[in-house]
Amino acid sequence: MKRDGHEEGMGVTGDGGGLRGLSLNQATVRNLALDQAVGLCLRHDIPAMGLWRDKVAGHGLARSAAAVRGAGLHVSSLCRGGFFTHADPDARAAALADNRAAVEEAAELGADVLALVCGGMVPGSRDLGLARRMVADALAELVPTAERLGVQLGVEALHPMFCADRCVLSRLGDALDLALQFPPAAVGVVVDAYHVWWDSQLAAEIARARGRIAAFQLADWILPLPADVLLGRGHLGDGHIDLAGITAQVVAAGYRGYAEVEIFNQEIWDAPPDDTAATVRQRFAQLAG
Amino acid sequence: MKRDGHEEGMGVTGDGGGLRGLSLNQATVRNLALDQAVGLCLRHDIPAMGLWRDKVAGHGLARSAAAVRGAGLHVSSLCRGGFFTHADPDARAAALADNRAAVEEAAELGADVLALVCGGMVPGSRDLGLARRMVADALAELVPTAERLGVQLGVEALHPMFCADRCVLSRLGDALDLALQFPPAAVGVVVDAYHVWWDSQLAAEIARARGRIAAFQLADWILPLPADVLLGRGHLGDGHIDLAGITAQVVAAGYRGYAEVEIFNQEIWDAPPDDTAATVRQRFAQLAG
Repeated sequence: MKRDGHEEGMGVTGDGGGLRGLSLNQATVRNLALDQAVGLCLRHDIPAMGLWRDKVAGHGLARSAAAVRGAGLHVSSLCRGGFFTHADPDARAAALADNRAAVEEAAELGADVLALVCGGMVPGSRDLGLARRMVADALAELVPTAERLGVQLGVEALHPMFCADRCVLSRLGDALDLALQFPPAAVGVVVDAYHVWWDSQLAAEIARARGRIAAFQLADWILPLPADVLLGRGHLGDGHIDLAGITAQVVAAGYRGYAEVEIFNQEIWDAPPDDTAATVRQRFAQLAG
Repeated sequence: MKRDGHEEGMGVTGDGGGLRGLSLNQATVRNLALDQAVGLCLRHDIPAMGLWRDKVAGHGLARSAAAVRGAGLHVSSLCRGGFFTHADPDARAAALADNRAAVEEAAELGADVLALVCGGMVPGSRDLGLARRMVADALAELVPTAERLGVQLGVEALHPMFCADRCVLSRLGDALDLALQFPPAAVGVVVDAYHVWWDSQLAAEIARARGRIAAFQLADWILPLPADVLLGRGHLGDGHIDLAGITAQVVAAGYRGYAEVEIFNQEIWDAPPDDTAATVRQRFAQLAG
């Protein structure tokens, strides 16, 4: 397989308009500290990273910002804010305070977007509508901070298997309906192919998301699902998702940012990070070169 | 908690119109042979059963039909046909032949519906549309047999976590769009709350399914998901789904059949079946009494 990515694939990167390039989400090489992940990207000619708040905190916010800036890396996302759905008002206030801190971190890191995993069902409630309204209310409270600091919030739909415990927005359309209530500079959507690939309405929703796609994430759906369903993601091309088709739809909808590869998988975490980065780059080139 | 189910709940059963009553799906007491499950229903005053083809075959088709008829039990469904998505034409033909046999079994058992789990992605393909067209084509071939034998086919949407390997119809709306291509007496939809509860459009899709709801199944979404995600279902009321609300929507859409409790859960299978049946009856009474 080719490594440079310019001779095969779908032509969705490059001069003719298209994706800006590949980004490595830190979660894919979870065992590395932030500076190690920066070094990995430089060795493998990967121009951007998606960062995680715990890793940033572990390395120090100012040092992290300096590290990515000094390396010339773009920060395609900061993961993550959200978890807005609480029955207890104090817990809700604490979540909002934590999200305001996350917006400030995203600003200091120069991240394209703060990705939001909005939270599951409200404890003690079986009312999906209540949980969704709580997400909308929290977002309305967070938007002024985002606007003041020039950070775009990215509402992410998660796979319906996470509806109860992580995110009550299960389809791209759910995330988009919410984002459309706010100015586009303040709120967009994160299109994560792993979470939304199964949706018969996906192509239409991606088209409808024109001007609102804040980030684009990639991982493949592999079987069997592992004991912890959070960790069931595979390298691009190893699973069932038409990632090339979804990438083309996202580009056709006007998205010009990075494609971030974010893979939660214990085996991949256990592999040598340089092997992982080489595979990520190679598979992305095949997909989008 | 009350056992007779007539003093609390939502009033969706009874004289005023509503559900016809409770049905026990055999999968909930998987360790019992068919005649044992029939006896269990009689002991617990459960008037209907959902049958499984392997259990029927194990007991013998004619004997099974005689057993349920002799006990005065209604057969609310036969589970299941489907798995139409094959790359190999011989495998496709074999699936169709097996489904024709299933229709004949449903007719002999007097089942309200033959439930269809339509199949996952076509082997070697990442084209969801191809898989869905293959399901539609197979259904078109199966419908004449169903019409000749007076059996209604029930297209079931499965939770999107089963999209790759079991069913490419992930939302009630997907199942309904397919069913609407055929006469209502021949093709309806199975509304399984466990599979569709997360959908922000569910209430609208249930309303749109008026006249097409062939069966209604219940189980709750409990956390954490087990290692085998097929087995993550709980007794009604133990999880996160607003089962009372969904039941009311199904009744408001004109459904007057049985509510079938179908729980895949190793712990429940390991429990004494009489305990399970008592809990099923009690929880249903709370929900729908």
